[in-house]
Order: sequence, then structure tokens, then C-alpha cells
Amino acid sequence: MARNRLIMAPGPTNIPDEYMEELALEFPHHRTQEFAVLLANLENNLKKIIKLANGEVVIFTSSGSGAMESTVANFFVTGDTVLVIDIGFFGQRYKAMCETFGLHVIHLPYPPGETYQLEDVRAALAAHPEIKAVYVTHHETSTGVLNDLQALGELIKPLDDTLLITDSISGLVIHPFDMDAWGIDAVAGGSQKGFLVPPGLSFVGLSQKALGKIARATTPRFYWDYRQMIELAKKGQTPSTPAINLMKAMLRSSNDLLAQGLESVWQHHYQLRQYLESKMLAMGYTLGVTDEAIRGNVIVPINLQPGMDSLAICRELESEHGIITIYGLGEKMHSMLRIGVIGPLNATDIDQFSDALAKVTKKLYNY
Amino acid sequence: MARNRLIMAPGPTNIPDEYMEELALEFPHHRTQEFAVLLANLENNLKKIIKLANGEVVIFTSSGSGAMESTVANFFVTGDTVLVIDIGFFGQRYKAMCETFGLHVIHLPYPPGETYQLEDVRAALAAHPEIKAVYVTHHETSTGVLNDLQALGELIKPLDDTLLITDSISGLVIHPFDMDAWGIDAVAGGSQKGFLVPPGLSFVGLSQKALGKIARATTPRFYWDYRQMIELAKKGQTPSTPAINLMKAMLRSSNDLLAQGLESVWQHHYQLRQYLESKMLAMGYTLGVTDEAIRGNVIVPINLQPGMDSLAICRELESEHGIITIYGLGEKMHSMLRIGVIGPLNATDIDQFSDALAKVTKKLYNY
Repeated sequence: MARNRLIMAPGPTNIPDEYMEELALEFPHHRTQEFAVLLANLENNLKKIIKLANGEVVIFTSSGSGAMESTVANFFVTGDTVLVIDIGFFGQRYKAMCETFGLHVIHLPYPPGETYQLEDVRAALAAHPEIKAVYVTHHETSTGVLNDLQALGELIKPLDDTLLITDSISGLVIHPFDMDAWGIDAVAGGSQKGFLVPPGLSFVGLSQKALGKIARATTPRFYWDYRQMIELAKKGQTPSTPAINLMKAMLRSSNDLLAQGLESVWQHHYQLRQYLESKMLAMGYTLGVTDEAIRGNVIVPINLQPGMDSLAICRELESEHGIITIYGLGEKMHSMLRIGVIGPLNATDIDQFSDALAKVTKKLYNY
Repeated sequence: MARNRLIMAPGPTNIPDEYMEELALEFPHHRTQEFAVLLANLENNLKKIIKLANGEVVIFTSSGSGAMESTVANFFVTGDTVLVIDIGFFGQRYKAMCETFGLHVIHLPYPPGETYQLEDVRAALAAHPEIKAVYVTHHETSTGVLNDLQALGELIKPLDDTLLITDSISGLVIHPFDMDAWGIDAVAGGSQKGFLVPPGLSFVGLSQKALGKIARATTPRFYWDYRQMIELAKKGQTPSTPAINLMKAMLRSSNDLLAQGLESVWQHHYQLRQYLESKMLAMGYTLGVTDEAIRGNVIVPINLQPGMDSLAICRELESEHGIITIYGLGEKMHSMLRIGVIGPLNATDIDQFSDALAKVTKKLYNY
């Protein structure tokens, strides 16, 4: 299939032809043994990718936000206290979800482009021993910042009654992730970022510590209920009819990722990100994340020059050059571009993007 | 694409090649104008199909059960009373969902293969004027019974504080449906039955009466929250990244259904069902639904002969004949076949199925 467009967005990404073609092939009916094998193989691959030796993976037919909601709906009693580390749009989404489910939220917000401070978390945990979970976004897609999860894990692992829960929808596959070693209790992932398949599937990895908290939960959940999913998955079944053809595509992509080796995927994205950064800096833009140490490899956020409008630039890039890139989220909507570097991209694509951006800003702003 | 298997199941169905191929084509990024047009067109088609002139349609990335859950999570205050008409597996699912969300359920159960009695509903509504909603499955996929919704609508339409909510996941497209004329307040649908696209999308149609109840709800919901979805859809957006390629396939199939005319689709399935029934009766089986007036056109449920096991028959049909059909649900799991007649099937397929079934029962049971 010829590629008509170059997608440099935080995801969905450009998708390799073979995964798109997989979607058009016959798929097993969900009440057959063939489906049971598909489900088990996909669960096993996901466990390998998140490095979970001793726990469970549940797979949802939903956007990634559904997987996030499930990590709010399955562990708590109404009124429980949780700590939400918030470095942007998706941190705020966790806060909103927790409040929706009647949890008492201790909120630790940080300005866009910054990461959390470990001392603040330590202090909050000391002041509030009743905290039942700490929520943190791994890679914050609204700002491009990668939070350090390992340090949080070391802090929280010894606390028997506190879970460490993360949304790594855009982080997984692109960055190292080690659920067991880092002491992550629940991680939400999605199909449409590093896995390079279309949106529509999400999943959650659950540690033994997390599994031990499910029985105490009283918040209402049916579709997101881990209990029924885990019980039925053992028999190769799902509670309702899942997005089977997306599961097939994700099985294939996860097979390929594991065969290729995740280290090479991380390295590839790191190099792409650095190359794009160097081009944007040379064109006179500043980066949205000033500290190199906390920059993720999913997007390169750049601050536009005064007077430029990201929405106008995105429209022109799409209509005149067939390139999809995305404007800022929140207060930086108009002043920021979030240029995705994930998916099957290479240096030539980044050159193409940079040339097109130069033409667009020349045309619109004589820059 | 050559068809390797004949699917005679309640869905997913055989899927026309052109919808499968649509899944493998490039799809718009969800933050573009192209996506906004796709979303609006799909919503409009769905409104036409469910005959909703003055209301809203929300589209979820989920199995049909997610759409069902949304109709429980969006209208009520904990402790509200609802009436659940239960004629099988999916009626019981509504009951479980309502109880999960802390609603007080008045339960009207009927034996498998039977429909509800209008007098019972009338009596329950009279005895309990506090009833905030009546839940009813349109076509009950576990038994093959089609409930009459029009009579319920006439009963409930005059009650300002009572909603009529239905799961028509397997009923829509296959059977007439008229949301406005019948006075249905919320209907849940899915992609993988009459719409002939793979599973992974669901939707809900909402009447003005239903929309008027959303503000009073206190039950927790985020992913299923109609408010954010309706607000963002007006701007051509969704709260999270949806299953865009499934939306494209469903837009195409719904375009085709509307162009073809739903009447011819209903008629086609009615004729197929009757033809399959006649073949099964001729082979000595009895039908799971004795009353012709309440038989749906989605499946033909048949009672096997004593000593036969539906699971063994399904396995043999699949492995030796490439035919997928499904065993019973619940207490009739082993003694019933549920033979799907939806999807692009014709009389030749039914002949092929009947011949294969005869060979299998001859081999396994000398019948």
C-alpha cells in the first residue's frame, strides 16, 4: 500500500503495511479454540514487553483511557485517598477519573515541561500514610516529559497498602519499562502508539500486590471489572465480543517487537528524537522541554515564534504537504507543535518534515 | 479475499470483503477535519438507521456491553429503582450491571424461549411509580426471542420520569426499529452484528427525554460519560483516541445499508430464517422458540436430540467442514445449537450447513 501521508503525531502513527493488511484477514470467532490461543499469546507477549513475570494482563476493547479508568475502578473503597502526580493533560485526566469515582485526591501539579520532584512525593506519603495509590503518567504526551518511575517504585514498594499506578500508553515500547524491577503495580497501555497498530485496544498489567487489592474494592464497575476478565481469560474467553482483528494485528506487531529486540526500538527512537531536535534548533525554535534528562522519545514539542499559530501551521502542513503533526494541548494549544517521532519513520522523513515546515512558515509568516 | 469459513453464528458474522479491505486503508488522524467529517457522517447514518430525528448518538470504542453499561451509568442516583425485563443471558447482564451501579432492581424474569408479558410490566409500573427506567433486551441472542418494544413504548412514553432503555445489539438492522415512533429513550448497538463489520465499536441513541435525565445522575462514569462525548462531538472530536478504522468500515457499511434500504435487509433475514427452520424441522429437530410470532431473524436455535452434545457438534463442524456455529448459553449450553442467519448468507449456505450438520450427527451419533 502506498503511503499517502506522513504522520508525525503522538499516535496513531504511520502503521506498517503488514499490520494494516492483517486487519483485513479473516479472524477467529471469539467462542473458538483458535481465539483462546490468540488471547493467550497476546497476553504472554504483553507480559514480556512490560516485564511482568508474576501477575496478570487484561486486554480491553477500548481507547487507552478505558484502561486508565479500570485502574481507578478496581482497587478502592469510596473515600479512599490517592496521590496524583500531575505534569500535564493526562495527569489531570487521572485526577478527574479518581474524583469521579469518589476518591479523595491529593494533587501534586507541576508546570508544563517539568517532571515531578521526588521529595514532594516522599513528603506527601509521610504526611498521609492513608494514601492507597500513587498515580503518575509515564510519558506525558501533552508536554513530551518522561517521568522517572524507578525512583517512585523504590519509594512505594515497601508500602504494603499503597499501589504505584501508571499510564504508559505512549511510553511503552518507546522507552524501557520494567514492571517487576521497578515495582509498578498497574500499568495502562494502548495499541496505537509504540505497538504500531490502529487504536481500539488497551490493556493493563497487574502485579500480585495489585491483584491482592481487588477484593476490597467497592466502586462500581462491570466492563472494567478485572475479576470476570481474569477468570474468563483462563478459559480462553472474554466477557463480551472483543475487537478480534485488532488483537490479531497487535499479536503480530508484538511478535515482531520481541523478535527485533526492544533495545533497538528504544535506541531508534532516541536517535530520531535527537535528530529532529537538532533540526528544529537550527531553524530557530526552542524546545518545550529544556532539560535533556527528562525528554521522552515520543514527540519533540517546540515553541513557535511569537505570532505563529500552530493550528494554521498544522492545517497547511496537512493540506499542502500531506504531513500530519499536532498542535499543543491546553494553554499551549496555539503556540506549540508536538511533532511525533514514533512509528516507522527515518531521518529522510524528518528532513521532509523540516523542509515542509520551513516552506509553510515562509508562506504564512515569512519566517 | 477467498472465504475460508462459513460463519453461521450470532455475530461476528461473515463480513463482506469490501468492509474488511476498508480496515486496511489509511485512516484520518483523530485531530483532523477529515476525522470530524467521518464522525459526523457516521452519527448521522446511525440516527437514520435507528430512526432518531431529534436526539443524540454517541459512539464508543468498546464491545456492545460497554454501550449497555453507559445506559446504566448516565441517568441515575444510587438507590434509584429500575425494572429489568429478563428473558435470557443479556437481560441478566442488564440486571447485573444495574445492581453493580447500586440501583434497586425489580426483576421480571421469563423462561428461555419466551417473551415478556405486558400485563406484568403494567402491574409493576403501577405498583412502583418510583421506577426510573425499564430495561429490556430487543433481540435476546441467547434464546432467539424478539421482544415487542412498541407496546412497551406506548406504556412508558406518558411517564415523564421513566425511561425505556433497550439493548438492540443483535436486533438493529436485522429487524425494524423506530426509536421516535416507539418511544425508546436509549438504545445500545454494536458493529459486529447487522452492520457486518468487525467487533470493537458500539453506540447509543438517546432521546430528548433521556438527555434530560443526564444532569441528575450521580453514579460514577468517565469513559462512558455522555456529557463530554456529546460536547466534543459537536466540535468533531472524541474524548480519547477512537477505533478510527472500524469507524470508517462502519460508515461504509451504514452507507450501503441505507442505500440498499433497510426493508430489503429485514425481508432477506426473515426469509433466510424461515428457510433454515424448515430444513431443521425436516431433519427432526425442534425449534428453541415455539411461538412463531416472537422468533427473531438473527439465529435459529434448535434443540438437539437426547444424547447429542452441541460443543462436540460445533467442534466437528469447524474442524471438518469449516463452519462456525455456536452452542447454547446457560442451562442449554450442551443441548442447543444457535445457528446464525445474519451476514452475507444465502440459501446455498444454508444447504451447505444442513448437509454438514447431517454428516456430523451421522458420524458422531449415527443420526
